[in-house]
Amino acid sequence: MLKEIKVGLCGLGTVGTGVVKILKNHQEEIKYKLGCEIVVNKILVHDIHKPRDIVVNPEWLTSNPDELVNNPEIDVIVEVMGGIDQTNLLIEQALRNNKHIVTANKDMMAVHGQKLLKLAKANNCDIFYDASVAGGIPILRSLSDGLASDRIQKIMGIVNGTTNYILTKMTDDHLAFDPVLKEAQELGFAESDPTSDVDGLDAARKMTLLANLAFKMEIGLDDVEVSGISNISQEDISFADSLGYTIKLIGIASINNGKVEVSVEPTLLPKDHPLALVKNEYNAVYVYGEAVGETMFYGPGAGSMPTATAVVSDLMEVIKNIRLGISGNSYVSPQYETQLKKNEEKYTKYFIRMEVDDEAGTFQKITNVFSDEKVSFAKILQLPGSKKETAEIVMVTHQISKQQLLNSLDHLQGLSVVNRIISYYRVDGEE
Amino acid sequence: MLKEIKVGLCGLGTVGTGVVKILKNHQEEIKYKLGCEIVVNKILVHDIHKPRDIVVNPEWLTSNPDELVNNPEIDVIVEVMGGIDQTNLLIEQALRNNKHIVTANKDMMAVHGQKLLKLAKANNCDIFYDASVAGGIPILRSLSDGLASDRIQKIMGIVNGTTNYILTKMTDDHLAFDPVLKEAQELGFAESDPTSDVDGLDAARKMTLLANLAFKMEIGLDDVEVSGISNISQEDISFADSLGYTIKLIGIASINNGKVEVSVEPTLLPKDHPLALVKNEYNAVYVYGEAVGETMFYGPGAGSMPTATAVVSDLMEVIKNIRLGISGNSYVSPQYETQLKKNEEKYTKYFIRMEVDDEAGTFQKITNVFSDEKVSFAKILQLPGSKKETAEIVMVTHQISKQQLLNSLDHLQGLSVVNRIISYYRVDGEE
Repeated sequence: MLKEIKVGLCGLGTVGTGVVKILKNHQEEIKYKLGCEIVVNKILVHDIHKPRDIVVNPEWLTSNPDELVNNPEIDVIVEVMGGIDQTNLLIEQALRNNKHIVTANKDMMAVHGQKLLKLAKANNCDIFYDASVAGGIPILRSLSDGLASDRIQKIMGIVNGTTNYILTKMTDDHLAFDPVLKEAQELGFAESDPTSDVDGLDAARKMTLLANLAFKMEIGLDDVEVSGISNISQEDISFADSLGYTIKLIGIASINNGKVEVSVEPTLLPKDHPLALVKNEYNAVYVYGEAVGETMFYGPGAGSMPTATAVVSDLMEVIKNIRLGISGNSYVSPQYETQLKKNEEKYTKYFIRMEVDDEAGTFQKITNVFSDEKVSFAKILQLPGSKKETAEIVMVTHQISKQQLLNSLDHLQGLSVVNRIISYYRVDGEE
Repeated sequence: MLKEIKVGLCGLGTVGTGVVKILKNHQEEIKYKLGCEIVVNKILVHDIHKPRDIVVNPEWLTSNPDELVNNPEIDVIVEVMGGIDQTNLLIEQALRNNKHIVTANKDMMAVHGQKLLKLAKANNCDIFYDASVAGGIPILRSLSDGLASDRIQKIMGIVNGTTNYILTKMTDDHLAFDPVLKEAQELGFAESDPTSDVDGLDAARKMTLLANLAFKMEIGLDDVEVSGISNISQEDISFADSLGYTIKLIGIASINNGKVEVSVEPTLLPKDHPLALVKNEYNAVYVYGEAVGETMFYGPGAGSMPTATAVVSDLMEVIKNIRLGISGNSYVSPQYETQLKKNEEKYTKYFIRMEVDDEAGTFQKITNVFSDEKVSFAKILQLPGSKKETAEIVMVTHQISKQQLLNSLDHLQGLSVVNRIISYYRVDGEE
């Protein structure tokens, strides 16, 4: 049995510093749980002379990647420096040299993940990236462990902290999207280019990672239906509220009869649904397993210490696997062909809001359209519209297929009494 | 490396049957994740001829415990048959024969746990009992894994499904304790003798297991302050509601400067606190770690398939540890002397409800008592009392010590204008 495992650390920013601190402060516990020691013996940094918050042996520091990825002494590379293409080349080289990888780099994993996972497998190496998905929540490991003795049917999650922060502020403080985004940027909860968060792409990337693991398929980003939060208005939030719902950006991955659906979209949840109460930058993932039923994991979606903790947990798993001789087995390769649900097979409830002419017969014309499509309703609200001689109608359907929704919307738009469909959202989390 | 691990299963009721099914249905995944096979080769049952829902090899069945605990072929005993003293003897014998244990038996662990854990350690064996604490929630393992790289500061949990079911019904359906308990008994959510659940003892046992693991101490049941839910009235619930709180039976274990406090008591939580929304028989455990911050694990607190899933997960961990050569290390033995916080060192907020004479000067006398004890208030409600010429006062304090509370209550009871202290509860989960 190995007495110690040597680790090369790429990056010594806040996360890297956190990793070094945790490994030092928890040395004894870690040894006890692993049966061996973890020794960091090289740290890749940009400038080895830069003053730092942490004291490390100067001999560990290097600005030459070769001293890590081509170093025969090193067993595991921990990558917390960020970057996409150049970092990917470095990781590929490390894998070819049979080094295991722990990374917190979701951008790289989103672009190069599938290729890196295959390369890892071909070299009997592990590549663990739990810290890249939901910060402090060990969701990949929980799914992967749970999967060994259960079958996942549905995952529903808030997996992007920025959008959850924005929606929380919009809901609780009754503010519009733009000023809240601005505030979030000032506070560092949103990036200066917030597109990838706000449009749901970041969440979509994470949902593909979760769905591929849960369903053992190779679902790509193109297979995910994505819509973001920038069009959500204060009125949508307030109508949802008066009907008993909170709007959240929800990622859903579900499987029925071998067919899957993966989506990220603003979704109305009952106010007392556990995910409705996940506020600010927190993340949470709901998992429905065949045997275990509903479980939920909740925690900080980001932050340097939560991320460092997740990195160390991943590192410990990698080392356990080395010692068990099962490296490369943890993330199973796709076993099933990806089969996507058609619109006729996607069932949910919808919230639909439209502006109509306020005249006799309007409501009947609208209900005729829905009844032609066999769509029925759980809740209906009619209110005076913002313009003269208009009304606003808000409806929540019973379970219908996405195709029924699209057909109905299409016919509604053909009616002269319907001025416009203002918004429509998925409704989930009810009986 | 071992090619297969042989398991003896004690009990083939609903949980035992679930375990056999999971091992069979997930054979491939399990082998993949462990690098070896799990083979059940003996099952202890009462009557080997009884008709069963599941087909098992008749040669596996035995009614003689010796064929399991003294069987040199068997590596791990999985105990899901229940019973306390006789089952304990059987487990002790198995440990002396160097067999690892997985058990879902919280009654036995509550009575004999500390002794069994020591015996296991002395024989370099694992004894895993995650399924006994919170059904489908892998909370012991999460704590134990998390602990390797973080320090736990506080655990707050709903760890008893029966009392949570009763409180949910009392709150949502505005019913009194007695009829709800009766209904719960009829539905199988409460036992015919509900004392251990309703009085908080079951939750207290689980909190000692969690606290001992988190703080590495040897906290006994006697060190836990316990109060149950049978005195909670509809009025308490409705006053709490009007002040923005929900009443839950909450177990708390916290540590400050090496001193701990473990308690189980009805607690007021803000309605939008994640634990306030855990309904019916569900359990959830909040963990505050120094590095990771707040995380929460939510899931079914009981049920045969969730429990069987937890048992199989524990079994897989035991087997990993055998193969890693770290058996007996997972649950660390107490490293610190148990130091309990004194009442002067326990800080929280309190909800206090009292019946007073409705006369001039009453309120001033009461506030004088509190101000003598330096107790100040966040919220005060005064309403006409149920009896003539009485009033009811409900107050929520700012953070005070338990000693300040007790002194205040003592002085209040000495005032002639105070007819009685109706109830008082801890308030937690606020900023």
